[in-house]
Amino acid sequence: MKAVLIVADGMADWPLKELGGRTPLEVARKPSMDGLAEIGVCGIVDPISPGIAPGSDVAMLALLGYDALGVYSGRGALEALGFGMELSPQDVAFRCNFATVDERMAILDRRAGRIATEEAFELAKNLKEVCRRYREVDVAFESTLEHRAILRLRGPGLSANVSDSDPRKVGVRVLNVRPLDGVVESKRTADVLNDLTQLFHRALKDHPINERRAKAGLPPANVVLFRGAGRLPNVSTIRSEYGVKAAVIAAVPLVKGVCKVAGMDLLNVLGVIGGYEDDVYAMAKAALEALKAYDLILVHFKATDLASHDANVKLKVKMIEKVDELVGHILRGIDEAYVVLTTDHTTSSITREHEGDPVPIAIAGPYVIVDDVSEYSERACSKGGLGRIKAKDVMPLLMNWMGKAKRVGA
Amino acid sequence: MKAVLIVADGMADWPLKELGGRTPLEVARKPSMDGLAEIGVCGIVDPISPGIAPGSDVAMLALLGYDALGVYSGRGALEALGFGMELSPQDVAFRCNFATVDERMAILDRRAGRIATEEAFELAKNLKEVCRRYREVDVAFESTLEHRAILRLRGPGLSANVSDSDPRKVGVRVLNVRPLDGVVESKRTADVLNDLTQLFHRALKDHPINERRAKAGLPPANVVLFRGAGRLPNVSTIRSEYGVKAAVIAAVPLVKGVCKVAGMDLLNVLGVIGGYEDDVYAMAKAALEALKAYDLILVHFKATDLASHDANVKLKVKMIEKVDELVGHILRGIDEAYVVLTTDHTTSSITREHEGDPVPIAIAGPYVIVDDVSEYSERACSKGGLGRIKAKDVMPLLMNWMGKAKRVGA
Repeated sequence: MKAVLIVADGMADWPLKELGGRTPLEVARKPSMDGLAEIGVCGIVDPISPGIAPGSDVAMLALLGYDALGVYSGRGALEALGFGMELSPQDVAFRCNFATVDERMAILDRRAGRIATEEAFELAKNLKEVCRRYREVDVAFESTLEHRAILRLRGPGLSANVSDSDPRKVGVRVLNVRPLDGVVESKRTADVLNDLTQLFHRALKDHPINERRAKAGLPPANVVLFRGAGRLPNVSTIRSEYGVKAAVIAAVPLVKGVCKVAGMDLLNVLGVIGGYEDDVYAMAKAALEALKAYDLILVHFKATDLASHDANVKLKVKMIEKVDELVGHILRGIDEAYVVLTTDHTTSSITREHEGDPVPIAIAGPYVIVDDVSEYSERACSKGGLGRIKAKDVMPLLMNWMGKAKRVGA
Repeated sequence: MKAVLIVADGMADWPLKELGGRTPLEVARKPSMDGLAEIGVCGIVDPISPGIAPGSDVAMLALLGYDALGVYSGRGALEALGFGMELSPQDVAFRCNFATVDERMAILDRRAGRIATEEAFELAKNLKEVCRRYREVDVAFESTLEHRAILRLRGPGLSANVSDSDPRKVGVRVLNVRPLDGVVESKRTADVLNDLTQLFHRALKDHPINERRAKAGLPPANVVLFRGAGRLPNVSTIRSEYGVKAAVIAAVPLVKGVCKVAGMDLLNVLGVIGGYEDDVYAMAKAALEALKAYDLILVHFKATDLASHDANVKLKVKMIEKVDELVGHILRGIDEAYVVLTTDHTTSSITREHEGDPVPIAIAGPYVIVDDVSEYSERACSKGGLGRIKAKDVMPLLMNWMGKAKRVGA
């Protein structure tokens, strides 16, 4: 038996005054989601535990069945992996920003005016040369999208327990990276990063691209900020845990990184970049196609979360209706398989933040015990047959119905 | 956003034959509680885990969000703290009873005829003198209410892992305190207590008050029994955990002690002594007033538990109706805030004991997802939108809605 797990990022919400006390899910037109609830079993899911607001990385680790807090070890490595950087367990990776500083190293713009991807790519060539010549440890640097980049330190004697150089505030000087514990590896890693801050700054400040930008009145990308030091979580793959072959359709690097850690193959779909315009028909088609070769396909839709962070309720409703199309395409294209619809966390359109509320889930398939919930929403699903479960239980439940249950005892 | 958390001690109960299979909550007239259920989200709460009957201390620690079993370290210290005794983390404290023994040190009355508070206070003066002269460790003794008292041992080399001297049975001799493990600190602490048993007995037996009592045919308070050796739980305060300023309105020393451990301010209300006559209007008024200066007010009502321990069902129903008044006053006096109503544990009017059943909860406030429960009772709340949660999850849930959610991951 096969399964499709659809995760609409941050789709759950709080009841909103402007919607008469209803949530975006409750006002959206979503016949396919409701149909799924009708033919399936529903429930509510605590991403970690009641009231705890999870980051996307922790929430996705939990949904994939892991003890998320136990295995989590920083965002940097997950994101680097998601961007396609090759990582081994000893490596320490960081999220980086090209930024603009004045002659005192005080931040003028944390994103260097959201410098174009192409320009950042050119600047990165010089930084890669710096890395090649650096003798202390093996360093790799890659620019990714716009001002974003990733840094990987490799070699023995490193630690992910170091502070950020990014002060997250304009007007403040770039921070000295500090060891966060007393071990010698943390001290050494901090020293390396402080070296690199200076070396990168020297390599960037007179770069022709930055001179051109300055002439055009644009902020030069004359420094690189480091944050989110991380190592790969040490987990066994879904394949080795349950014996299923799994793949993911996702555009967000962090989500891709988590799925890669879980041993899932990453499938790229044209027209899917993790934005409002993502082509849900293409996503569904790719998922159905991939289901021929895989046992489990995870489909991650990002824009529901984006709309919440923008506090754009109308757009959130519209994005939920897009998820409904995605669900519809998949339900129509599938024969006998499990279809799961859930979200990784609540994102409140009021606070614009991830919140610690439980999220709705609906699961349809041959062996679920259908309840009488016929609407997919935070409120309706709380009456479902699954009751209130934890995200880390979703994968074992699904594997159980797929005939891959883990048995304990004799 | 602010919140009031109302805890009616031991309010939940078992279905009673004399009530036609209904619980006291189900027969009480309680329009305000039902109104709260109607405008809020309901659920049932396991104090610790299903079937585990908690003591009041453990139950309150859980309701304040702590891993109660993990941090609990004996009742003595919590109660001493609640009585206003100053305690530091190394101190070991005990609950004490003035009691009556015969010349063989066998118990005649475990409460010395519930000796008057004033008489016990006079007797305590002599015992304090004994403490002052005792050289082995620093000892403090205070009489509290009637036959009750507290003892604090201070200094290095002590342990809370010792047995009680209180045999809890009439006719049995006062027990020798024993170390409960092999460490030298436990042996020493036991020796100190056995010393004090003898020294206190010597200081009490010929005391003029006891001679007067004997003449009047009253049992003399000629011994002090020790039990519930404890140290303070090592926990971080609610303020440092969530950044909220919290206070409690409670009369019961043990509850006050737990709340003090959590860093809450203790508010005294005239007319509130933890008895049947407690003035709920004064409690509500004080809570509403305190809400101006605090983010979170806990209001603890004791008499529901007393009635259950007395197996007085009629009185329990009446006390529940008093809680209803309390809830009504608070709901009428509050603008925009969260109001939570729950109880720390079930106290069965049949067994007269704390039981391990889940208890009902109702939470109203701006961002809860209102369910269709419109009655506050053990049965009705089990159908609520919160499902079945644990007491330790209540505080994180509330903090989440108050905008103080703890976030994990990136």
